This record gives sequence, structure tokens and C-alpha cells, in this order.
Amino acid sequence: MSLIVQKFGGSSVRDAKHMRNVAGIIAETYLEGNDVIVVLSAQGDTTDDLITKAEEINPHASKREMDMLLSTGEQISVSLCAMALEAMGLPCVSLAAWQVGIQSTNVHSDARIKKIDSERIQAELDQHRIVIVTGFQGVDRQGDVTTLGRGGSDTSAVALAAAFRADLCRIYTDVDGVYTTDPRMVPSARKLEEITYDEMLELASQGAQVLHNRSVELAKKFRVKLEVLSSLERKPGTKIKEVTKVEKTNIAGVAKDTSIARIALIGLRHNPGVAFQVFDLLSKHNINVDVILQSIGRQDSKDITFTVHKKDLEDTEQILEEHKEALKFDHIEADDDIGKVSIVGAGLMSNCGVAAKMFEALYEAGINIQMINTSEIRVSVLLDEEDVNRAVKAIHAKFFDEV
Amino acid sequence: MSLIVQKFGGSSVRDAKHMRNVAGIIAETYLEGNDVIVVLSAQGDTTDDLITKAEEINPHASKREMDMLLSTGEQISVSLCAMALEAMGLPCVSLAAWQVGIQSTNVHSDARIKKIDSERIQAELDQHRIVIVTGFQGVDRQGDVTTLGRGGSDTSAVALAAAFRADLCRIYTDVDGVYTTDPRMVPSARKLEEITYDEMLELASQGAQVLHNRSVELAKKFRVKLEVLSSLERKPGTKIKEVTKVEKTNIAGVAKDTSIARIALIGLRHNPGVAFQVFDLLSKHNINVDVILQSIGRQDSKDITFTVHKKDLEDTEQILEEHKEALKFDHIEADDDIGKVSIVGAGLMSNCGVAAKMFEALYEAGINIQMINTSEIRVSVLLDEEDVNRAVKAIHAKFFDEV
Repeated sequence: MSLIVQKFGGSSVRDAKHMRNVAGIIAETYLEGNDVIVVLSAQGDTTDDLITKAEEINPHASKREMDMLLSTGEQISVSLCAMALEAMGLPCVSLAAWQVGIQSTNVHSDARIKKIDSERIQAELDQHRIVIVTGFQGVDRQGDVTTLGRGGSDTSAVALAAAFRADLCRIYTDVDGVYTTDPRMVPSARKLEEITYDEMLELASQGAQVLHNRSVELAKKFRVKLEVLSSLERKPGTKIKEVTKVEKTNIAGVAKDTSIARIALIGLRHNPGVAFQVFDLLSKHNINVDVILQSIGRQDSKDITFTVHKKDLEDTEQILEEHKEALKFDHIEADDDIGKVSIVGAGLMSNCGVAAKMFEALYEAGINIQMINTSEIRVSVLLDEEDVNRAVKAIHAKFFDEV
Repeated sequence: MSLIVQKFGGSSVRDAKHMRNVAGIIAETYLEGNDVIVVLSAQGDTTDDLITKAEEINPHASKREMDMLLSTGEQISVSLCAMALEAMGLPCVSLAAWQVGIQSTNVHSDARIKKIDSERIQAELDQHRIVIVTGFQGVDRQGDVTTLGRGGSDTSAVALAAAFRADLCRIYTDVDGVYTTDPRMVPSARKLEEITYDEMLELASQGAQVLHNRSVELAKKFRVKLEVLSSLERKPGTKIKEVTKVEKTNIAGVAKDTSIARIALIGLRHNPGVAFQVFDLLSKHNINVDVILQSIGRQDSKDITFTVHKKDLEDTEQILEEHKEALKFDHIEADDDIGKVSIVGAGLMSNCGVAAKMFEALYEAGINIQMINTSEIRVSVLLDEEDVNRAVKAIHAKFFDEV
């Protein structure tokens, strides 16, 4: 007998019909003899509807009260799901995060899970009940409801899988797995049978939207075996785990990200600590910086180039201008017509020729590379935004079609 | 400085506009320098909408899961109300029953409040925050959400007022107080300035629908001063308390109830314990019996006549027929074309002539009385259903117009 955690997103439970479908999947798993913990998001548009209600009353409501309001969405989901399982004659119980004891920090709207109490869920599992838990939420030390921010429900599922040492954590979505690149753009994209945590992390942070990084990081930390699969089709998805096939020769996938902008600080003094000053300043303003490149400029100065999210571009420029004197740079250059294309694969950097193959594909397609950035298992290039889709297709073809 | 509990029903908070109006009333009370605990029901149709959602999935869902589902309605109300108060710049916090510690029995859908923890609310009051609590719900010993059944939100408000020794518990509804009779039927009906708990109890159980008996009973037990008033008009309502003006000479009001049916068991044996057997049997089937009359029948037999709720008539007949042999009666007579009209007033029975005045009014109107039943502060008559409205008007006129 195994313990399996199953997480279903909002669109998978959006109405009575979909909820019954989800109950059917849960029932199958349970009737195969497994212990089952289910984690659900709020149904379809529920969260948006609640936000609309709130904005009608107060567009600047406190995050504490927003969490109190929004957490009802998952509670509605779990109770309805329990009713669907009851209709099938299966023993089950729905539990909100506060009933489980999913203890979190008190950062409303973006809390982190600190600890999960095991008593209540274990007692229910011991009675052979299917346990259905609200995703996306926790309770802080004071007993106030928190929500976990982006990727919150996936994180709830992985955290529960870790706490109860589940054999598998299945994340059901509206796609049937992780692909070598976006199949809507590249029809020859292939579904991956398996992928490592690190590859998934790089793919997710480079723009693949199947899983949020946070849940993958947590899965990696606690060695939780993940599987991403579709709630609408009964077929295997993509398994995410510590190690996949040894000596893989190909990359795992190609990802793109067009939500970034590039900023260059030109003519910085060549003193130690300059980079620290710049990025410490931005981090204090909660601006996430991605690719960073430092080059030696003319004479005694240097340039620092980095990317930020497009939505942060204006703020970043303003903050830097305000500190122009302290930072002592000459001027700022900004460009938001750029995009990033990445290839990801375990052992990529120890595999000579992989990066070269990527650059070759871009060269053949006549695409100019603005910046290059690499990690142990990833190579990213910055391009003109208009070249991004063509670049993904060319690179994907190079690695997957020319076998 | 006083502590005031204010309870608003579902129609008073049904949309953003009404919620803002309620927030205005709360703000006034708070800005007058009072501590304020607010109790809210679910908004307008929320509960019905949730029930529809549940029935789509499982028309026979467990009460435990229904409570889990329905309790979200009040949580939505309290968080939105907090947001409305935040928009006015007022310090406030919303709390669900489990956060307060409104401990209840575990009878799902009809739980009773056992105890209210004081720490959390007291801590919030000490910080001069307006505390907004979900009505209608509690949490059982296991940590499961319960709902309190009919009159639940009023009961929550009174229980909180009792626990915190509030100076006043204001129940806001869509009427502006307790009237001498239904003002929609009798235009000359007067609003009562004050009324005793006992009078209110009798009026409520005799058909006046302003307050549920349960909350009035609780208020009486803990000497909680109640006021019933309108959320739409700023004027005094009706105060409900232990003692009103001494030596009142008039009755408090006239109530009607047409939801009853009459059943007569004819030809019962004249043995001790017969009545016990009949009503013990019905109580075991959860059938509430109201007026009971026992008369000596022909020879060695007697008849027992009583009233039940119309909806229970069929079940009652069936249960009695099934036990005909054990109970040894001759036959059953049932009549659902009846109604009950009552007058209520403290000290009514010690005031000779009051009952006579009622009977006189009925006689003058040519209305036949089927049964009479009295309590210390009430006289009720059973009539043909078609006579009920005429009877109320005639009695009300006798007591209130002929002064």
C-alpha cells in the first residue's frame, strides 16, 4: 500500500461535472488500495469573483482580510469534492489548512509553510478515509488565515507529501506533462517521460509554466517524487525526480521568456563593491534581477548589464536615477524589446558541443545573440524579442528533429 | 464606555451597497466611544447558492460537509465587512468561529454553543479594534466546523454578548422593531418600545418572526439586554429586557400561526400513562407537539387532541396508525385547515378580564373557537384557518384601538 498525494488545480474542479471527474480519479487511486491525500485549489473563477467583490467594497483592503476572504474558495472546493466522493460511497473528510495545522509565516498573501501537524490527517488515514485538504493556505501563529502566494497549491501538495513521506505526489493540470518546448508553438514538441528536479527548476524559471519553481524546490529538498499529468486524460505524465537515465545525451527542453527587460548601467567606477551596491539597492526595493553581465568599459570604468521583469523596468530606472550620485554611473540604457531563450539539461555543461549546437542553430537562422548566460544545466541567450519564437523553433529542431 | 454587540442578517449585508451601510452603523457606534463586537450572517443568497452547488453534486451530502461548505458564507461576509471598515480608516479584524473559539456540540447543522473562549476577542478589543465575528457557526471538540441551525446568527450574537457581559445586543433586521401584530395585515399595529423576554418568547413561538426563540431564551438566561431595530432607518427599535413598566394594563401583542395542523386520537383507553406513550412515541420521531388537550370521551374512553406543524401531519398520522394496537385508540381525526391566534402580555393571567376581552372580540366577529390554551402570559385559541386574519384584526382592534 502506498500513500499518494493528488493535487488538482482550479480548472480541473471548476464545476460539478469536472468535480465528479476529479472524484473519479481519486476513487480509482483509493480503490487500488492506496492511502490518498487530495489537495485542491479554488474552483475556476471563484478567486477572481471574490477579488471583484472585495474591490467593489475596498480596492485597498488589507492582505489579512483578503486572505480571510480568498481562503473560502478552497474550502468550498474541498467540501464539494468530499460530497462527490460521498456520493460514490467512499469514506472521506475535507479539512481546511487550520484544521490540519498547516502552519505558516504571517506574511499575508505570500506566506511560507513552516510545519505541518500530522495528528489529524494521520487519524483520518488510519480510519481509511480519503483526506481532502485546502491548497494555497495556512494558518499563522496567531491563528490567522494566510495564503501562500503564487504556486501555493502545488506547494501545499508537495509539503504534505514531504510531511507524510508520500510515495508519489501527482500534480494534475490541464496539460498532460512537461514538453521539450511549448507544443502550441512547436508541433513536434515531445512529452518528457521524466526530468530531474534541477532541469524542471531551470525550465520553470526560464518560462515553462507547468509547475511553479517553489514547489519543485521543495520537492527537491525533501526528495518528493512528482508527476505532472492531465486530469482529463488517463495517461502517464512526466515524472520529476532526483536522477533520470544516466548519461542522457540530449537536452530536456527549450524554454522562452519574453517578460524581461534589459538595463545597462554605463560608466560605473571600477571600485570593489559597486555591483554589491547596485543589487543590494534593488533587492531592498523587492526587484528581482535575473541575468547579470559585467564588462570592462572605457578607461577606468565598467558597465553592468542585467535583466528584470518588464513590469519592474520603470521602477528600476527610477530607483537607479535617484541614486545616481551615490552609485556614480554615467547613464542608464534600457531595452524592453528583448527575450530570452534557454536550453536545459542535466550534465549539459559537461557535455561539450551542446552550447555550440545551440549557437549553430541561431547562426543558421540568422539570429543575433545579445548576451549569453549559463548555469551548470542551462544555457540562456538574450535576443531581440521578435526573434524569440523563431529561435525556439530553430533550436528545438536542431536538438530533437535532426536525430 | 460600553460594549455593544451588533448583529446584521443576510439581507442587511446582501451587496456592496448594503455592506457599506452596515459599516456606517458600526462606525457610528464605535466612534461614539464604544467597544463593538459585530456578528454577521452570510450575504443575501449566498447560502442558497452554496446549497444549490452541493445538490448538483450530491443531494444527500453529509451534514458535516454541508457545514464545512456553508460556513464559508459568513466568512465571506465578515472579511468584506472588515474591508468596508478599513476603507473608513477604522481598526478592525474579522474572525471565524474557530478563531474566536465558539465551541459547540458536534451535532452538525444544528449544533448548540457550549462555551466561548475570550482571549482572542479580548486581545483585539484591548487594541481598540472592531471585532467582526461569523454568526451561525461553531467548532466542535474535534476541530470540525458546525452550524447552529435556525436562528443561529441571533444566537451567536446573544452568546457573545453574554460571554463578554455586553451592555447591549442589537439585532438589526429588515423590520424596525416588534409590533403589536403584523403591520402588513393590521395597519394600526404599533411598534412596542419595550417588551419582556417572556412576552417576546411567547410572541416568537406564537408566530411572530422577528427573533428566534432560541436567542431570546439565551438572552433571558444571561440577562442580555436586546434591541431589535432596522438596519435601513436610524431610529430606536424595540428593547427586550427582564422587566418593563410596572403594572402594564395592556397586552404586548397579537400573533398568528397558520402552519399548524390538528390531530385527535379518539377513543383511547382511560389508563394512566396513555398520554406519555403517545407523546414519547412522537418525540422519538422528532415531531414537535404544541397545544395539547385531553378530554373525557364516551364511556370508559378519552380523546387526546394536539397540534403539530403542518409538514409533520402526514408522518404523525402514519406513526400513530403503525402503533394503533399498542396505543389502543379507536380512530384518528386530522384537520389542517386550522390556525392559532394568541395574545401575549406579562401578567396577563393575573389580570382578570383580558382573556374575556379576547373572547368577546371573537364573539363579536362571529368567529368560532375550537380549542383554548393558556400560559402564564399568553392566551391562544385554535380557529378555522379562514378566520385567522379576521380574528387578529378584531382582537387587535379590541385591545389597541378602543382605548
